[in-house]
Amino acid sequence: MTRDQLIHIIRRKRSLLCVGLDTEAHLVPEHFQGESHPVRAFNEAVVEVTHDLAVAYKLNLAFYEALGEQGWSDLEATVAYIRSKGDCFIIADAKRGDIGNTARKYAEAFFDLLEVDAVTVSPYMGRDSVTPFLGRNGKWAVVLGVTSNEGAMDFQFLTVDGEGQPLYKKVMQRASEWGTISDTMFVVGATRVEVLAEARALTPDHFFLVPGVGTQGGDLGAVLEAGLTRDGGLLINSSRGILFAGKGEDAIPAARRAAAHMQRTMEAALRSKGVI
Amino acid sequence: MTRDQLIHIIRRKRSLLCVGLDTEAHLVPEHFQGESHPVRAFNEAVVEVTHDLAVAYKLNLAFYEALGEQGWSDLEATVAYIRSKGDCFIIADAKRGDIGNTARKYAEAFFDLLEVDAVTVSPYMGRDSVTPFLGRNGKWAVVLGVTSNEGAMDFQFLTVDGEGQPLYKKVMQRASEWGTISDTMFVVGATRVEVLAEARALTPDHFFLVPGVGTQGGDLGAVLEAGLTRDGGLLINSSRGILFAGKGEDAIPAARRAAAHMQRTMEAALRSKGVI
Repeated sequence: MTRDQLIHIIRRKRSLLCVGLDTEAHLVPEHFQGESHPVRAFNEAVVEVTHDLAVAYKLNLAFYEALGEQGWSDLEATVAYIRSKGDCFIIADAKRGDIGNTARKYAEAFFDLLEVDAVTVSPYMGRDSVTPFLGRNGKWAVVLGVTSNEGAMDFQFLTVDGEGQPLYKKVMQRASEWGTISDTMFVVGATRVEVLAEARALTPDHFFLVPGVGTQGGDLGAVLEAGLTRDGGLLINSSRGILFAGKGEDAIPAARRAAAHMQRTMEAALRSKGVI
Repeated sequence: MTRDQLIHIIRRKRSLLCVGLDTEAHLVPEHFQGESHPVRAFNEAVVEVTHDLAVAYKLNLAFYEALGEQGWSDLEATVAYIRSKGDCFIIADAKRGDIGNTARKYAEAFFDLLEVDAVTVSPYMGRDSVTPFLGRNGKWAVVLGVTSNEGAMDFQFLTVDGEGQPLYKKVMQRASEWGTISDTMFVVGATRVEVLAEARALTPDHFFLVPGVGTQGGDLGAVLEAGLTRDGGLLINSSRGILFAGKGEDAIPAARRAAAHMQRTMEAALRSKGVI
């Protein structure tokens, strides 16, 4: 999906919502456990009640790899199901990063075989680990900038090169030069909103994928305030806050309510910023 | 496999060789292409002729994920085949790194489901992305320290904290405190041998997984000189240099010759250092 198409669906759906399908098999509600593919069935039910509210879906590979061959098949089926619903941006949250020839294999796996729009990429190995994901029309690398976890403090905030600049800024600045605003996004966590504002100032036109709202403690209003651009510029992820908003038979209706609640807050911000 | 067991097989096989099964499907020789699972059949043939010479096998996940569900099944079958050959250390080269609950899922996928001994882990997200791989008896996290690619220069050598210390040293120093020498190894590339010597001085007792010998330009003798310890302390990887040492019908005999050539050089170094 190209940048223009993404901005178009943000305006049409009046939403920046990314639903994270981090589907832990043992947390799938009881009434799906009788299905031949419980994870897939649960994902499809969630997509069914959220696809008019969400512009994106993010599938964290860990939860599928933990199920082996069956997990990969669930992943493929879920991606195909989301595709069948029309305009949705699909992100494989894989946090890959490897040397050139290997990175090319990953790009093949995700873009050509799984046919997702974007892959999250870890920057530690540098330019040649990221560029194989760039320059493909409508395909995106989502480079880790500042993550939402506690461990982000270990290295991402070290000052580098005696310039008093934190590592994450160096990463975002360099990576922004490798590609364009049409093939590169950044992961910028919601849990340190002042950092999100700094990241926005550094790369004003790049889309950010923002994890960490909800269960991890990030505040949606503050994220919108700090990160929204006139193109939207944000995909704000909620995983557990939507998937596990309710229990048992209420899980799916609760998922819709949680998604709708976020969408309304996003719509208000999009209006006040003049995006729609 | 525990540290003691690993050191034992290094001494018994008189080798530090890790064979990288980066099996690109289209490079598998013609005479395997008629098999129902060409990648698996080729891997098994390579393992058959190298397992007495190699202490470890490393499977880079990219090459298997690029084949989808079939790839995951080839991966599982190859791991099972290596296991059936007895004492070999198996590394899933996945370069994973994600927040706590997700990292735990990856640890489950690799250690409990795929049953490998070690997983490569990217450090950018910090402590809570690494610790879920630690503290399991006989299982290992192999943390990226200095990689062998050109892009390593982009961030790993930035000086941090005004101490004139490169990022990779900070990463290795901190990560060495998270675990022990019995559950943590480091990836240290062969392509910058003076850096390997520095890394060895910093963490004298940790095992290093060393990629980059051969095709990427690293020199085996120089790596042994800079990195060998009295426990061995090195797993030296060769992927393309063994897998694709010969063409067509000669591929498998050539793989053995290439592995045997490396093993002889390693044996001489192990003797001269008094490891055996």
